[in-house]
Amino acid sequence: MSCPLCETPGGTLLWQDDFCRVVRADEPDYPGFLRVILNAHVKEMSDLQAADQQALMRAVFAAEAALREVMAPDKINLASFGNVVPHLHWHVIPRFKDDPHFPNPVWGAKLRGTPHAAPADVDAQLAAALSRRLVPGSGRE
Amino acid sequence: MSCPLCETPGGTLLWQDDFCRVVRADEPDYPGFLRVILNAHVKEMSDLQAADQQALMRAVFAAEAALREVMAPDKINLASFGNVVPHLHWHVIPRFKDDPHFPNPVWGAKLRGTPHAAPADVDAQLAAALSRRLVPGSGRE
Repeated sequence: MSCPLCETPGGTLLWQDDFCRVVRADEPDYPGFLRVILNAHVKEMSDLQAADQQALMRAVFAAEAALREVMAPDKINLASFGNVVPHLHWHVIPRFKDDPHFPNPVWGAKLRGTPHAAPADVDAQLAAALSRRLVPGSGRE
Repeated sequence: MSCPLCETPGGTLLWQDDFCRVVRADEPDYPGFLRVILNAHVKEMSDLQAADQQALMRAVFAAEAALREVMAPDKINLASFGNVVPHLHWHVIPRFKDDPHFPNPVWGAKLRGTPHAAPADVDAQLAAALSRRLVPGSGRE
C-alpha cells in the first residue's frame, strides 16, 4: 500500500534517527510548523509499546521546546490525526495571536491573511535547537 | 484569573485521580469524544517535568485504548491546543468514516449531518474501560 510518509521525508528534514524524524512542513501560513514522524508505518499511538510511545512523545516535546526557544510563540498546538495518512505523525505548531487562524485551530476558519513572521534562518535555528535536545538513538528504549 | 477548567469538571466525569481527569465532552456530533484534563493550571506540555508529561500521556493513551475497545473507531484523533483556555487538556476523539467531518479534523469543514451512533450506555462502558487501565494515584511519579 502506498504511503507518502513511508516513501518521502514529508517535509524539510531537520533531525532524524532510526526511530523518528522531525521535518518542517511546507505550510506557507505557518513558518516553523514542525512534524514529528515515526519512521515505521504504524497507525495509532496505542499500537506502540509504552517505551516507544514515550520515545515518540519525547521527540514531540523536544520539538515544542525548540519552537518555544527559537520563535517564542503565544501557544503551542499539538495534534495527531492520520485520517488521510494513517502513519503516525504529530503536528507541532507555533501559534501567535496575529497568525491567520488564531484562536481557531489551523484547520478551522481563517481569520487573517498574513503569516506571523519567522527568522530567515528558522530551519537552521530549529535544527540546532533540536540537536541540543535529542540524541540520535536515545529515544527508543 | 478565571479558568473554566479550574472551576468546572469540563464535561461528564468518567475517571479522576489527584493529577488528572477524563471527561466525556458535550459534543453532540461526537458521542464518545473524551477530554483528558490536567488538574493543575499549566499552559504547555513543556512546562511539565518529564515524569508528569509521561503521566498525562499515559492517561491520554488509556483514553484512546478505552475508546478503541468500546467504540471500535476507524481512527483516533489526538489534539492539545489551549488557544482559548490555556490549561492543559487533550482531545481524544473516536473518528468514523461516516462521521460528520471525516476525513477532515473535527475543527474543519463539516461534510455530513448525522453523528456515528454510539451505545446508549457509552459513558458507563468507557468509565469501566478507563478504570481497568488507570489506577488512581499511579500516574504521577
